[in-house]
Amino acid sequence: MIAIDWGTSSLRGYRLAADGRVLEQRRSDQGIGACQGRFAATLAALIDGWPGDVALCGMIGSRNGWIELPYAPCPADADALAAAMQPLHDPALPGRTLWFVPGVASGAEAVPDVMRGEETQLIGLLDTLAQEPQGAGRHSVCLPGTHSKWVDLEHGRIAALATMMTGELYALLRQHSLLARLMDADDAQFDGAGFDAGLQRSGAPGGLLHHLFGVRSLGLFERLSAAAAPSYLSGLLIGHELRARLPLAPSVHLIGGSGLLDRYAHALRALGSQVRSHPEDLAAHGLYRLAQRRGGIGH
Amino acid sequence: MIAIDWGTSSLRGYRLAADGRVLEQRRSDQGIGACQGRFAATLAALIDGWPGDVALCGMIGSRNGWIELPYAPCPADADALAAAMQPLHDPALPGRTLWFVPGVASGAEAVPDVMRGEETQLIGLLDTLAQEPQGAGRHSVCLPGTHSKWVDLEHGRIAALATMMTGELYALLRQHSLLARLMDADDAQFDGAGFDAGLQRSGAPGGLLHHLFGVRSLGLFERLSAAAAPSYLSGLLIGHELRARLPLAPSVHLIGGSGLLDRYAHALRALGSQVRSHPEDLAAHGLYRLAQRRGGIGH
Repeated sequence: MIAIDWGTSSLRGYRLAADGRVLEQRRSDQGIGACQGRFAATLAALIDGWPGDVALCGMIGSRNGWIELPYAPCPADADALAAAMQPLHDPALPGRTLWFVPGVASGAEAVPDVMRGEETQLIGLLDTLAQEPQGAGRHSVCLPGTHSKWVDLEHGRIAALATMMTGELYALLRQHSLLARLMDADDAQFDGAGFDAGLQRSGAPGGLLHHLFGVRSLGLFERLSAAAAPSYLSGLLIGHELRARLPLAPSVHLIGGSGLLDRYAHALRALGSQVRSHPEDLAAHGLYRLAQRRGGIGH
Repeated sequence: MIAIDWGTSSLRGYRLAADGRVLEQRRSDQGIGACQGRFAATLAALIDGWPGDVALCGMIGSRNGWIELPYAPCPADADALAAAMQPLHDPALPGRTLWFVPGVASGAEAVPDVMRGEETQLIGLLDTLAQEPQGAGRHSVCLPGTHSKWVDLEHGRIAALATMMTGELYALLRQHSLLARLMDADDAQFDGAGFDAGLQRSGAPGGLLHHLFGVRSLGLFERLSAAAAPSYLSGLLIGHELRARLPLAPSVHLIGGSGLLDRYAHALRALGSQVRSHPEDLAAHGLYRLAQRRGGIGH
């Protein structure tokens, strides 16, 4: 079968063996934002030459995607998500069935929260953990990103989730704010001391709205360089994200593939939590498991 | 004499009587951002026909202004600010002395904070309060804006200050974020219920980075309309600003002139604090007092 993780800004395909092993991978920048109205042609090109049915997760199953699936409610496990998968046939992909995985919503609270795509990575993680002695218990998971997701896993189920707009706020402040001109344009130069100073500052009284102004005032008094300021801002925002989750779980699972994961791992350890890191292609693993549960998804 | 409050985006002039009464006012959109390199001509045009020396406060005394004055340190009182005023003569303004008021910095903390212009409004407020029985005691002051200032007054002095980037963050999220497209473009339509819902949400666990995502998730489930979303966001951000100041002083002085003041007054009362509102032209009052203390500023 074929596993597809199709988000807003990227598209990833995996050709899987009958036992779930990844045989081949293909990536594209054709996220759903880039290929509106030509999803079938984009997918057909990506999986050209790969046989079998296709299981898809991510924003491709949203209002702005190919078809919109309602969110599955928390708590959600593999059986519930597999049962909610929806099939589609498209003339551009003859002989194949496409199976879309729903996102997950936590709706019990006053304010709902949602994810699409991460739930499939979590199913992959749950399957990994199930092989371990304590695996069926409680786990705290963080998926860093533009919108970071924090998820509680309990007894093999996705029990609760919370989204943090950390990455988006960083980008907004970096590009459009009055702070932007106080920071070097080059984001690639990570400054460890600056990051740690921001992380430490996030624990001071005054709140995030106040701490942000420190990027300006520290710069005014030449106590923060334009080169270190982006890392300071990053440490400040990630610090606020983590401290909003206090007390942190003794161990936090991180899922991701970017350099961002290193920053989160460092910050979590600095705040006293242990870290286990997992690769993003847990999505392929999760899609395989969901297809197994669903049954009838052909190879 | 003439009092000038010259900020980044606006310029306000007051012709004062010998006893400090405002005889005439003039306003212009020629903030320092709009008239770089022609400050003298801009001022000469504004005060054309008004006699006397000129006292100026605001960003005109900053690195991007006419001359840069160092910040006066906290605690700062009228005597300290008057002593630090700097004179300037300019051929475009013959026969007049221009007197620039310094900004104020709090430097004792790990991270400094600064203001330019607000200190003069505060001197005006201190002068008003000195007429009252309890006026010489402790006061909490908030000046809402793009960058809100919170100031502690103690025994006739500016004792401490903290800046909150609330207004700027609102504008960034309103214009550039993924939330922007979920909100009606019209900012003028204030929605009281939406504002109160955001204000209430700001007191829930999870932190600001998480609460912001609620604008999206509530919208997804049609529990927040595009018309009410801007007010919800406003209430959320102002709520976080106020809660970072908890426990709020039993009474908070608000200084300002915009509709924003009403939102802050409403939010402060909802969180149990009393409010006293003061007009922005306290700056004219403060400049008059500083000129008196300084002496030798001619009419």
